[in-house]
Amino acid sequence: VTRIVCQQLAPRIADLPFNRAQTVSAIGDAIDHGADIVILPELATSGYVFASRDEAASVAITPDDPLFGEWAAAAARGSSVVIGGFCERGEEGLLYNSAAVVDNSGVVGIYRKLHLWDQEKLIFQPGSAEPPVFDTPHGRIGVLICYDLEFPELTRMLALAGADLVAVPTNWPLVDRPVDERPPEVIIAMAAARVNRIFIACCDRTGLERGQEWTAGTTIIDHAGWVIARQPDEGPALADVDLSEARQKRLTDLADALADRRPKLYARLSEAPPDHRPDKVDAAPAALFRAH
Amino acid sequence: VTRIVCQQLAPRIADLPFNRAQTVSAIGDAIDHGADIVILPELATSGYVFASRDEAASVAITPDDPLFGEWAAAAARGSSVVIGGFCERGEEGLLYNSAAVVDNSGVVGIYRKLHLWDQEKLIFQPGSAEPPVFDTPHGRIGVLICYDLEFPELTRMLALAGADLVAVPTNWPLVDRPVDERPPEVIIAMAAARVNRIFIACCDRTGLERGQEWTAGTTIIDHAGWVIARQPDEGPALADVDLSEARQKRLTDLADALADRRPKLYARLSEAPPDHRPDKVDAAPAALFRAH
Repeated sequence: VTRIVCQQLAPRIADLPFNRAQTVSAIGDAIDHGADIVILPELATSGYVFASRDEAASVAITPDDPLFGEWAAAAARGSSVVIGGFCERGEEGLLYNSAAVVDNSGVVGIYRKLHLWDQEKLIFQPGSAEPPVFDTPHGRIGVLICYDLEFPELTRMLALAGADLVAVPTNWPLVDRPVDERPPEVIIAMAAARVNRIFIACCDRTGLERGQEWTAGTTIIDHAGWVIARQPDEGPALADVDLSEARQKRLTDLADALADRRPKLYARLSEAPPDHRPDKVDAAPAALFRAH
Repeated sequence: VTRIVCQQLAPRIADLPFNRAQTVSAIGDAIDHGADIVILPELATSGYVFASRDEAASVAITPDDPLFGEWAAAAARGSSVVIGGFCERGEEGLLYNSAAVVDNSGVVGIYRKLHLWDQEKLIFQPGSAEPPVFDTPHGRIGVLICYDLEFPELTRMLALAGADLVAVPTNWPLVDRPVDERPPEVIIAMAAARVNRIFIACCDRTGLERGQEWTAGTTIIDHAGWVIARQPDEGPALADVDLSEARQKRLTDLADALADRRPKLYARLSEAPPDHRPDKVDAAPAALFRAH
């Protein structure tokens, strides 16, 4: 059995020392709760609603920042794996909305958010690599960040790559929904868990930041798509799971969630959309046409 | 405004005359309810739980069967479009789990189910073509059948191809679910509607057939992913929608449900899975290798 603990936090915007201390403390608290896998929100070290790109840059860190050594030291006490979001300073000063996977040895890997939401596009560079799967002692873990989850392509790709669990650090801005309905992002995660037979754990944030309200919708979902834990009034969201159940994709004697796919028919999904083609094909330079 | 009407029926197994009369009557009733688009269940003309392939073959029909002329005549009274499932006899006697799109002129198109569920594989041939989008006077309609919906690749492909509405004739076998939860298939449809900003209408069946219980979960979902109609105790499920809303994929000034995709990174989705490669490449006949 693997215990997943999500720590829904309220980071302070652009206050790295406060957020460092808060995340280290949250990891320690998760270990006290018996966590094997600890998940923190998106941009947990930096906050989200930056006033400018410069403000984001002021709290951007690299994967060799001592902060992750503190995460690793906290994780070591429980032989745990930590997944948490941070504002990453990359090559040439480019900023990324990233998540670090950390164990007692330090940073195991980094995922850079592929699908940037709204004004994030003015601050961050999107990632350029498929989301990896990290083979940890507690299971095979894929990482997505927030809006990434609204692209079912990615959850499917992680399932195909063997992920048992998708850990999703997130900052869900509060959106309208009908009374008595779950947040739409949770419904999307439930569907993705079920069609892929994978566990999905979404760690959201809380707090009001520069007028922005958050969903505070932390939710852990099992491989059949059902909610098994939500943020309680006090303490962390916590679920005990058998991640190996995610390796069984067979639904009946003759049905299999992944083997029943028809990949050759899905080519359209990786094609550039028609409206990304050059506008004026008939104005193409003559050099593009081959001589006889 | 477009009125969608789903007619949740109980077909009689292998009784073509009964099912023909029932479907024609259901279309007429839908027109009486003001339907612009009428959706019938999967295999509405044949029933589902066949005792053998021969039994299925005994009620298989071709798209030029007079039955569809009766559907067209019924549809003509309302200038409606009908989407309904039938057991199709194809080339060389092969059987398909298909859906016909019919208007007052007759059969406009056929969709053959791509993902066959469980024992359907012993009876039917799977389709071999991408699901088409039918440009009708009432909007652009894509068609999927039942288990197809559990492959988010297909709903995405239909959205990319311009579908406003995905009509889903279905026979959902009743499965376990937690108390107070929707059928898992409905949650999957809600997620697909929201991430693609399309309407989805699922017309399920009812009745007990050879011991098989059905979900009877007919549901119409809007382009934000919310349920707008379910099967009532009496009469058809019915919703009035503005399908043109599905053409707006923009979520904020800087976010767009389709344009934010990263298609070049999705190549894995159309690759054959590793375990589908030939087991013994080194045992391939020499004739497969080209002479120098």
